[in-house]
Amino acid sequence: MSAPHPALTLTEELIRRPSVSPEDAGCQILIAEHLARLGFHNEPMFFIDTNNLWSVHGSEGPLFVFAGHTDVVPPGPLEKWTTPPFEPHYREGYLFGRGAADMKGSIAAFIVALEQFLQKHPNPKGRIALLITSDEEDKWVNGTVRVVETLMQRGEKLDWCLVGEPSSSERLGDVIKIGRRGSLTGNLIVHGKQGHVAYPQRAVNAIHQALPALDELAQIEWDQGNEHFPPTSLQITRVNGGHANNVIPGEVKVEFNLRFCTEQTADGIQQRVQHLCHRHKLDHQLDWTLSGDPFLTEGGALLDATREAIREVCGIETDATTTGGTSDGRFIAKTGAQVLELGPCNTTIHQINECVRVEELIQLTSLYERILEKLLT
Amino acid sequence: MSAPHPALTLTEELIRRPSVSPEDAGCQILIAEHLARLGFHNEPMFFIDTNNLWSVHGSEGPLFVFAGHTDVVPPGPLEKWTTPPFEPHYREGYLFGRGAADMKGSIAAFIVALEQFLQKHPNPKGRIALLITSDEEDKWVNGTVRVVETLMQRGEKLDWCLVGEPSSSERLGDVIKIGRRGSLTGNLIVHGKQGHVAYPQRAVNAIHQALPALDELAQIEWDQGNEHFPPTSLQITRVNGGHANNVIPGEVKVEFNLRFCTEQTADGIQQRVQHLCHRHKLDHQLDWTLSGDPFLTEGGALLDATREAIREVCGIETDATTTGGTSDGRFIAKTGAQVLELGPCNTTIHQINECVRVEELIQLTSLYERILEKLLT
Repeated sequence: MSAPHPALTLTEELIRRPSVSPEDAGCQILIAEHLARLGFHNEPMFFIDTNNLWSVHGSEGPLFVFAGHTDVVPPGPLEKWTTPPFEPHYREGYLFGRGAADMKGSIAAFIVALEQFLQKHPNPKGRIALLITSDEEDKWVNGTVRVVETLMQRGEKLDWCLVGEPSSSERLGDVIKIGRRGSLTGNLIVHGKQGHVAYPQRAVNAIHQALPALDELAQIEWDQGNEHFPPTSLQITRVNGGHANNVIPGEVKVEFNLRFCTEQTADGIQQRVQHLCHRHKLDHQLDWTLSGDPFLTEGGALLDATREAIREVCGIETDATTTGGTSDGRFIAKTGAQVLELGPCNTTIHQINECVRVEELIQLTSLYERILEKLLT
Repeated sequence: MSAPHPALTLTEELIRRPSVSPEDAGCQILIAEHLARLGFHNEPMFFIDTNNLWSVHGSEGPLFVFAGHTDVVPPGPLEKWTTPPFEPHYREGYLFGRGAADMKGSIAAFIVALEQFLQKHPNPKGRIALLITSDEEDKWVNGTVRVVETLMQRGEKLDWCLVGEPSSSERLGDVIKIGRRGSLTGNLIVHGKQGHVAYPQRAVNAIHQALPALDELAQIEWDQGNEHFPPTSLQITRVNGGHANNVIPGEVKVEFNLRFCTEQTADGIQQRVQHLCHRHKLDHQLDWTLSGDPFLTEGGALLDATREAIREVCGIETDATTTGGTSDGRFIAKTGAQVLELGPCNTTIHQINECVRVEELIQLTSLYERILEKLLT
């Protein structure tokens, strides 16, 4: 039996560290050791409760950044896992464990790709960096956001950023993400006047007040999307009001979230909703949280290199999309870098028995290496 | 200083018994002792957790029933009471204590009225009964409902029923209740399909599904009321759905309550709401609780006697209404009895520092005695 592929060995070592967000559980030390051996300069950046690692190789030329996270989502009920989530196991060609696909496998593949690349090309035409956080799966407050702030304050210029998120759908490389919609959350409180149901004339039912406005809000067709983005969508995610069946509620709380494309701006959306509330004469309070503006990498050397590498290594044409949830790519895009996401299949992520196909992980290593070659040699 | 009026003394003794619903705390034993001395036959009826007392005087002629409850609502924060809620205190012409107005004062006034009446008229032209429960303020399950069931099974015929609920508004006798609206509660669950907000096309937002139907439900004008009743009113009393701002809710729970007049029936309302849900194609579940049908005492000897007694004792014309919350009158009306409610002012009931005016309680004793005289001599 031949020795296991080094990307698998490293993925196993990372899975063994139970880094439930925002814990890093020693993953970044392991990563830093590998990078130090490759001549990288490691700069740990700790913010509040979060370990981050900024690690750079080389001193001149364009800057290529690999971005990833060591934290994972909680495993859920342990008894439902076939084998323990933090003990790597192989079954039927798959490597199982929490984080196998999202995204310890990608990190391991990239590090091994680096080793192979630097062995062949000890003096690449540009700098290579890794931006690793442990704050992606839960709060995204003290992770990539803070590292990017720090880098921007220093005047660091990021040219290309490859995020190792599991972008693939059916097979490796079939889908890459070249942007994401923005995410904006509104918290609305509608006030009425509490009272006894037997005396409706003395009360104002906050739920009744809110209904016509909410119905209109839910039915707005914001846009049709565009060439790169699906349509903007608003979803009412929470509604809570009332105490007892003989009390007319004096207050109702509503939360809604928008995933918005580049046809909208956060400001424009806020103004439209605010206007709607005023038109319905709601006695209300409305607060907003902007989790991220939309971003898009329409073209450029990174996209070209990735498309070509997928064609060569995987033998397929990739589909460049902007669908799906948010990722830390939104924070890095603010630097002006070209940003895209490429990683293994996302079929089992955040689920019981998360896994990655062994062959896929080995192929991903070659893919990452090929991208580095196209951009930096 | 003259001896205190016996209705005050008895009210004090009842207030001292902390009978928070469904506790009776010995009130009914005290009442039964008084009634036994007057020649009543006491029949305690205990159901599950509730003390009830059915006590009858005489053996022939029409049956007059006084209905009341010994239980009280909880006192709320004790430190907000000027004097402890279960220690009767007199201040500025008022007797303070939990239950003073709702409705230990009425019970005491009626018992003293009976004593005075039977002394003058030892052989009244009819029977007199008291129906006392300790289950009016909270669950109304093992109280008047069960006693009335038992009486109806026996073939007992109730002719007149005076409920001692605090009906008066500004001064004693200004308002009596000759009926009540019905109360019907609907519990609606609307189902959708849960999903991630980033993929709205894969989910069905239960809140969005429900909104148009709920808006229509809240805006229905059921009727204009009629000569005796205010209009039927529907109030959405509770709405709850959703977990997190990135999850499209798969379910929303809605509770609504109707106070309905004699222009509607519970069946008719249920059919209309059911039809509305189907028309909006809601995947839903709808359960109903009927707390009481509406009842009305349009005329008759009890109403005449009460109007005249108020005119003579209080010097005012009473206002016979059907407004306000429910009472145990709804259960007694099912027997076919004429039912009305007359008691002290309800300004402080269910509140901190509940009280009854001393002069009002003395006058109420005369009023009850005068009604007995008009009906039974």
